[in-house]
Amino acid sequence: MSEFEESGIGEECGVFGCVAAGEWPTQLEVAQVLTLGLVALQHRGQESAGIVTSNGVNPPTYNTLKGMGLVNNAFPPEDLLKMRSCNLGIGHTRYSTTGISELQNCQPFVVDTLHGKIAVAHNGELVNAAALRRKVMRHGVGLSTSSDSELITQLLALTPPMEEVDAPDWVARIKNLMHETPTSYSLLVMYTDVIYAVRDPYGNRPLSIGRLVPVSKLHSLLSVAGEGDTEGWVVSSESCSFQSIGAKYYREVMPGEIVQISKHGIKSLSIVPRPEGDLPAFCIFEYVYFARPDSIFEGQMVYTVRQQCGRQLAIEAPTEADVVSTVPESATPAALGYAQQSGLPYVEVLCKNRYVGRTFIQPNTRLRQLGVAKKFGALTDNFAGKRVVLVDDSIVRGNTISPIIKLLKEAGATEVHIRVASPPIRFPCYMGINIPTKEELIANRPEFKDIAGYIGATSVQYLSVEGLVSAVQGGIPSIQKGERISTKPSRRVGHCTACLTGKYPVELEW
Amino acid sequence: MSEFEESGIGEECGVFGCVAAGEWPTQLEVAQVLTLGLVALQHRGQESAGIVTSNGVNPPTYNTLKGMGLVNNAFPPEDLLKMRSCNLGIGHTRYSTTGISELQNCQPFVVDTLHGKIAVAHNGELVNAAALRRKVMRHGVGLSTSSDSELITQLLALTPPMEEVDAPDWVARIKNLMHETPTSYSLLVMYTDVIYAVRDPYGNRPLSIGRLVPVSKLHSLLSVAGEGDTEGWVVSSESCSFQSIGAKYYREVMPGEIVQISKHGIKSLSIVPRPEGDLPAFCIFEYVYFARPDSIFEGQMVYTVRQQCGRQLAIEAPTEADVVSTVPESATPAALGYAQQSGLPYVEVLCKNRYVGRTFIQPNTRLRQLGVAKKFGALTDNFAGKRVVLVDDSIVRGNTISPIIKLLKEAGATEVHIRVASPPIRFPCYMGINIPTKEELIANRPEFKDIAGYIGATSVQYLSVEGLVSAVQGGIPSIQKGERISTKPSRRVGHCTACLTGKYPVELEW
Amino acid sequence: MSEFEESGIGEECGVFGCVAAGEWPTQLEVAQVLTLGLVALQHRGQESAGIVTSNGVNPPTYNTLKGMGLVNNAFPPEDLLKMRSCNLGIGHTRYSTTGISELQNCQPFVVDTLHGKIAVAHNGELVNAAALRRKVMRHGVGLSTSSDSELITQLLALTPPMEEVDAPDWVARIKNLMHETPTSYSLLVMYTDVIYAVRDPYGNRPLSIGRLVPVSKLHSLLSVAGEGDTEGWVVSSESCSFQSIGAKYYREVMPGEIVQISKHGIKSLSIVPRPEGDLPAFCIFEYVYFARPDSIFEGQMVYTVRQQCGRQLAIEAPTEADVVSTVPESATPAALGYAQQSGLPYVEVLCKNRYVGRTFIQPNTRLRQLGVAKKFGALTDNFAGKRVVLVDDSIVRGNTISPIIKLLKEAGATEVHIRVASPPIRFPCYMGINIPTKEELIANRPEFKDIAGYIGATSVQYLSVEGLVSAVQGGIPSIQKGERISTKPSRRVGHCTACLTGKYPVELEW
Amino acid sequence: MSEFEESGIGEECGVFGCVAAGEWPTQLEVAQVLTLGLVALQHRGQESAGIVTSNGVNPPTYNTLKGMGLVNNAFPPEDLLKMRSCNLGIGHTRYSTTGISELQNCQPFVVDTLHGKIAVAHNGELVNAAALRRKVMRHGVGLSTSSDSELITQLLALTPPMEEVDAPDWVARIKNLMHETPTSYSLLVMYTDVIYAVRDPYGNRPLSIGRLVPVSKLHSLLSVAGEGDTEGWVVSSESCSFQSIGAKYYREVMPGEIVQISKHGIKSLSIVPRPEGDLPAFCIFEYVYFARPDSIFEGQMVYTVRQQCGRQLAIEAPTEADVVSTVPESATPAALGYAQQSGLPYVEVLCKNRYVGRTFIQPNTRLRQLGVAKKFGALTDNFAGKRVVLVDDSIVRGNTISPIIKLLKEAGATEVHIRVASPPIRFPCYMGINIPTKEELIANRPEFKDIAGYIGATSVQYLSVEGLVSAVQGGIPSIQKGERISTKPSRRVGHCTACLTGKYPVELEW
Repeated sequence: MSEFEESGIGEECGVFGCVAAGEWPTQLEVAQVLTLGLVALQHRGQESAGIVTSNGVNPPTYNTLKGMGLVNNAFPPEDLLKMRSCNLGIGHTRYSTTGISELQNCQPFVVDTLHGKIAVAHNGELVNAAALRRKVMRHGVGLSTSSDSELITQLLALTPPMEEVDAPDWVARIKNLMHETPTSYSLLVMYTDVIYAVRDPYGNRPLSIGRLVPVSKLHSLLSVAGEGDTEGWVVSSESCSFQSIGAKYYREVMPGEIVQISKHGIKSLSIVPRPEGDLPAFCIFEYVYFARPDSIFEGQMVYTVRQQCGRQLAIEAPTEADVVSTVPESATPAALGYAQQSGLPYVEVLCKNRYVGRTFIQPNTRLRQLGVAKKFGALTDNFAGKRVVLVDDSIVRGNTISPIIKLLKEAGATEVHIRVASPPIRFPCYMGINIPTKEELIANRPEFKDIAGYIGATSVQYLSVEGLVSAVQGGIPSIQKGERISTKPSRRVGHCTACLTGKYPVELEW
Repeated sequence: MSEFEESGIGEECGVFGCVAAGEWPTQLEVAQVLTLGLVALQHRGQESAGIVTSNGVNPPTYNTLKGMGLVNNAFPPEDLLKMRSCNLGIGHTRYSTTGISELQNCQPFVVDTLHGKIAVAHNGELVNAAALRRKVMRHGVGLSTSSDSELITQLLALTPPMEEVDAPDWVARIKNLMHETPTSYSLLVMYTDVIYAVRDPYGNRPLSIGRLVPVSKLHSLLSVAGEGDTEGWVVSSESCSFQSIGAKYYREVMPGEIVQISKHGIKSLSIVPRPEGDLPAFCIFEYVYFARPDSIFEGQMVYTVRQQCGRQLAIEAPTEADVVSTVPESATPAALGYAQQSGLPYVEVLCKNRYVGRTFIQPNTRLRQLGVAKKFGALTDNFAGKRVVLVDDSIVRGNTISPIIKLLKEAGATEVHIRVASPPIRFPCYMGINIPTKEELIANRPEFKDIAGYIGATSVQYLSVEGLVSAVQGGIPSIQKGERISTKPSRRVGHCTACLTGKYPVELEW
Repeated sequence: MSEFEESGIGEECGVFGCVAAGEWPTQLEVAQVLTLGLVALQHRGQESAGIVTSNGVNPPTYNTLKGMGLVNNAFPPEDLLKMRSCNLGIGHTRYSTTGISELQNCQPFVVDTLHGKIAVAHNGELVNAAALRRKVMRHGVGLSTSSDSELITQLLALTPPMEEVDAPDWVARIKNLMHETPTSYSLLVMYTDVIYAVRDPYGNRPLSIGRLVPVSKLHSLLSVAGEGDTEGWVVSSESCSFQSIGAKYYREVMPGEIVQISKHGIKSLSIVPRPEGDLPAFCIFEYVYFARPDSIFEGQMVYTVRQQCGRQLAIEAPTEADVVSTVPESATPAALGYAQQSGLPYVEVLCKNRYVGRTFIQPNTRLRQLGVAKKFGALTDNFAGKRVVLVDDSIVRGNTISPIIKLLKEAGATEVHIRVASPPIRFPCYMGINIPTKEELIANRPEFKDIAGYIGATSVQYLSVEGLVSAVQGGIPSIQKGERISTKPSRRVGHCTACLTGKYPVELEW
Repeated sequence: MSEFEESGIGEECGVFGCVAAGEWPTQLEVAQVLTLGLVALQHRGQESAGIVTSNGVNPPTYNTLKGMGLVNNAFPPEDLLKMRSCNLGIGHTRYSTTGISELQNCQPFVVDTLHGKIAVAHNGELVNAAALRRKVMRHGVGLSTSSDSELITQLLALTPPMEEVDAPDWVARIKNLMHETPTSYSLLVMYTDVIYAVRDPYGNRPLSIGRLVPVSKLHSLLSVAGEGDTEGWVVSSESCSFQSIGAKYYREVMPGEIVQISKHGIKSLSIVPRPEGDLPAFCIFEYVYFARPDSIFEGQMVYTVRQQCGRQLAIEAPTEADVVSTVPESATPAALGYAQQSGLPYVEVLCKNRYVGRTFIQPNTRLRQLGVAKKFGALTDNFAGKRVVLVDDSIVRGNTISPIIKLLKEAGATEVHIRVASPPIRFPCYMGINIPTKEELIANRPEFKDIAGYIGATSVQYLSVEGLVSAVQGGIPSIQKGERISTKPSRRVGHCTACLTGKYPVELEW
């Protein structure tokens, strides 16, 4: 229960695709692979889910399954069973930023064009969506939803003008789209028998490719799965979804790249460049909070980066204390990193009640007043009479951590020092992350001057922006224990820190 | 339980609209009027329902509510309550001919255009839908559903080209649409603060206008509601919905007419003509089966026409028998007409179990074998030892009436003469009615030669096409008892009898 | 929509049982026969339903399925499928008089006793339930529900004292129960492999036995089903349920009789007598309103009795008018009887909207004010300018018929004469019928003096108690047209008319 | 995901009660306190939940709310709102051992007796239930469920014989019950305005009392809540539920004690003794696995005991390795204890996907073959190339840990040493815990001889029974680091270790 979780800050979407390799019809349960893949991306969106499958023949039969809520609720088993005979498909899990999370806005979006149906799943937010909507509508197209996904689909259908030719050039249309909008999108476009996996030139949202190997080979220590053992290809917002379906990490889709995935394998078709001089701008908060700790970005494991943030925080903000602990569960790697770096013992101080969920609270009851604390039990023996360093991954509004501090103090902690493993958020995101309004962010409010007093902590310290960037970019091996890290990013690496610094990777009025 | 009901023959849709009169915001519960209006049109479609309301200001706020199943299930009360502050709206109830009755295809369809949002509800089926879809897609528009309603909406947005002007000319766009497709449609188009009610030039589907009067005036015998008492205007596929919401019948929308309905009242904007020489082609089966008996078309009550069909049938097919009865409930007016004309006593022979519904039947059980008969109880005392004339409104496949005849005979009827109050259906409909394939229609099968033997009846006779047309067109007063009616239709009256005669009102490959 | 329906007057329960004949395990789908049997009794209770089946071996396996709402909703298909391997069973459909219609009170009630499990289903209401509850509790038994069915079950277990013998004498226990409570109950008691069908000595509630014949024999005119063709035995509150499952009416259970139903057939075990001089007291309202018209009681069809009530009413209350009509649907036989007797033509004046159902009505809306009239459409052509006799089966509170009269007058009826085919209800029922409180009954209120004025009718007349009794007891053949009937009941026939006369068949404080 | 969780080993029930203090009607939201209390006991039973409340006046009005599934699903908000005006109540959450988890078996059980209604909630399993059922039934009582709770309720009603006196002596009846059955039960009995909290003489199941204090006092460091601030009393299977509702731990109910809880406070009424020489027999698995780590039993925190088990395990089974880790989440305290004692670094090696839940798996798919591993992500960086000590809390069947070991090895662990923080389970439990059959328990199977080879581990070692007992009984302070602990239990302390040793606290055929 980090402040992120309570604050409603969240990723908007996860995308997932699968193509069965080899001869079709396949024995692979594609619809089920999609479902399990989405379950593993569930942390990226819990409001609705959808999958679209294709049998891959020409003209193809597409089947669509969409529902509200978690993936496991959204797809009734009997409907999933009906989707058995498919050879490829894409899926999407969604968190709505706008509150309009109707089934209608649910992705993937399928439209019928002169050349047949395409399906689109999208993670991100087009910075110039408003201008693009006007452009499409000026052409005489009505838009039936507010989703960027429909907009992208209509843009793909629109330019260049559709002609009744034999071979529609979807790749040209995708490139055209990429020239019309710089960021942010990781896209899956399915057409008949291929999936195009597309990442915007700034690489703002993640996208990884994996290879499905036979389960028998998966855990075997003797035989190694070779290329010939490939049962299919998958593409996912995060590599964490690969293990749960028996896939092996293959590589990331590069910023600006269009990758074609078919039963014949993976083919890189094109890389659309950024403007001269622009660095990539992968969202740094994927590392800090959004991604699952076992995902791999840019060659490093997210858990390790978070642990490194904790170490860096211990260097920047050392504390005279008895124990180090975490606000479970997302801050745990950082807390362990802090403990390792500082030499203080790591203990658990809170135990989470995993059933709390959606308890119905009547207005004005004592239970409402108990606040977030009712979600935790205090493990008193571990901290009574002690000075506690409590590592959290953020303080967004400041009203989540406050009752936890009270709880610890009441249960006997003599001091509670809050150490935050990321810098204060100060600016809005226009690239797919739901962030409270500027006024709600504690870092922009007068209370921030005495943040410790405001939340009732003995002391409060944040990780610096430079510290975060070097924890991400430095890589664990190159940082020596105790050494103050340098802040120079290396080579062609770059990250979007706009919500911390206000420096956006592109002009907002594109 | 007529053969129509069992056979799945059915109307595709009902449309309903309401605009509050006088000053806005209105006290009228527009969303609830829409809901009750749709409930009264439920017989025209039971698979899904939807309403879209507008607050009527510029730019407007639209609210959409859609759901599967009957109207009362489709709209949760708490969602209806949220729609309280609206001043106008349109609704739709749908029966899917294609089996794809997903929420996505559910009407009304709303799209955002350069000039804001329009909402469209449609009853009918565009005879040239395939050509129009191709045209729209060639322009670069992707179509996300298979519904004519989305197609109509995109056609309205497309031509003439959208310009960023102050006053979009929707009426010109509607006229343009009417020139692109001759039939069949009764349309409601809502834009900000007006509803355009449109009927195709052939008048194939019905559309009537009503006036909401204060409830206090409604049943009063002393005070009569005047124009000043108008609380709002409603427009509906059938006038039967007026009474249930406290509205008075005003008039029909004419074939080809565009009527603007606003808070200021009713205004006829235009009448798009038919090609020279073409008669109107109002669907004759609205009289025979689809419409509710208390609806009014062309100045006459549907019940009365059905009764007249029964009388005409008694003239064309007299029977030596003891009693006349009905297959409840839709054939009852015809049976009463037959009894009146023939002088035979009318009795009830079957009682319907209204709870039968969706009983779960295991494969191969005795209950399946019992067939439709399990829906009826035999009122033995009324017919045992007697010769029965059983009037039904149709024999479509012939497998519904057969077990009923067996039931009556087994319970003691000495003879069972089937008299059908409409001619045999032989041809498909391309204008909005779901009819079994040609091969399934009993009138096209070899068994038809000995239909009485096939279904186990003592004799079978149908109403003639001429008899049906004259029952509809003649009007009750002009037909003398016992007189063979003439078959000349009068003046500018015309009806579509394509499913009976194969003569379609327009070229099918338009 | 009679006043009965609107007023909430209703039967409390229906019971149904089935035993497969011949060798076990049976091929008969017993659980499905039970379900369909209950569907046909649905008019006797719509709030919950339950079935209990037994495999019939010793010790038996019982399976229970219960649910809220209509039978078709209460039993999920997948649960029904699990009950396939059973050889006998009993079921119950329930309407709660008390409002506590929880699943817990749902019947049949199963309890484990020293001699194994028994299951009980009950229709009726024990007149001395309170005293019996005290008796059972004084013995140290706790009662977990308020239902008579649990009480009966515990009484059966209690006396005589249970001993660990081989052969428990359930028949002696049932007789003992019948001596403890005189009425009202029709009971089904299932134990291992038999069902005991029991009717109280006054025969207050109905109970009939039927024989399941092969479907192939059912409608055959050539072969007649013989005893050897018996596939099973069924027992039901009403014979109307027999046809829907392919069963033939066999006979009624007699007042006071205990019938044993097993795979070997039907066996009458005992008849518990009434006190010297007491007549039977079959509820006369089963004829008037509760039963389905195709059910048979005491050798006559309910429909025919209702028609006779209409004829009798025409004799007692003739009217100067133009047409006779009905408030659909329950009053139709009486209306047809009135028309036949009076010679006036029968027409339909109202058409019912069968979809109205549970429309959500916001407080204070126009739709609420429209009242019951929104459920009907006026068939104006049939009565405009005419004097109408409107036959209804009752006026309970007087607030249902009133808006219908207004509707007819407003639509052009010049006079509306209400003729009620039953006498006014004035007294409560303590034997299983839910009747409004004395104060709510219009016949006990001051308005009753000018009932015509109160409801807006031109005139109002009721059937006399004597007329009702003779219509029921006389039998149709013995009544000559126009003759004033005598009021002497014949032989051993007797009916409970307590709600009309206040004369109850037993002392209430038994 | 410990083997316990996967294996289905589980507590059967949790009970919770609340009485508002001071003047009634109370302002305290008793129904909501009950709900939240049950949510905090959700780990003790997830299949159904129920609450019964009383207004506390004489005669009382009881309200019952029961439902299947988790507490938050079982109680619809609108139903909870209806229960607002109550002053006391009891609740229950249930896990069915028998598979018959119907609503009917759902507790609390309410029965009507000669002296009014009592409600009973029960945690435990009566060792002599079969004999008691026979006894009750011999008295002529039918039992409608298979639950011990109904049996207890009928026993309370039965003896001594009920008389119509003014003051029923429930305490005498409870004592009588306690003499009829020695164990295992923690009971709540509600009657009108009091709750009797009862624990069996062996104290086999836990039961604790708490005091509700004003929320304003709860977190205040300045003001301390005094007796006068008591808002109510709560009683719960575990003290972990106190914090979530704003209650303070007060004390445990003692073995054999009957405590009366009323608005006037807590009163100990009686202590029913054990047979001479018998020790208490609190279930040792409450410490090992069932209880939430923040609960307090016998004066010590469960978390601390588990940590101590880990330390003891490190003494008994030291390992040459690089890192210590846990199978999240239940084994974490033991793993941290092992790490502390051994001096090896603690790291996380697995990350749990909290959304996996009820994914629908088609038969024979690859996803099924992936097994439990799909629920975890490997945090490779933390263990690749290292020797891992993996601490789990049990190995029940051995099929859960196996794929985890494979996963770690495949991801690069060079050695995986399994250390189990409890002894092998070998015997069934007859006192309320659901344990697999003897044959399924890995410790009773031939594979157990080479358990390491069977599950693919480098080595496997269990905690000894003596080690577990001393970790539980010794208390942390008295154990010196590295010292071999003595196995003598102190004074009047005793625990049930029957499932480990086969030594049951009472004769099973009581």
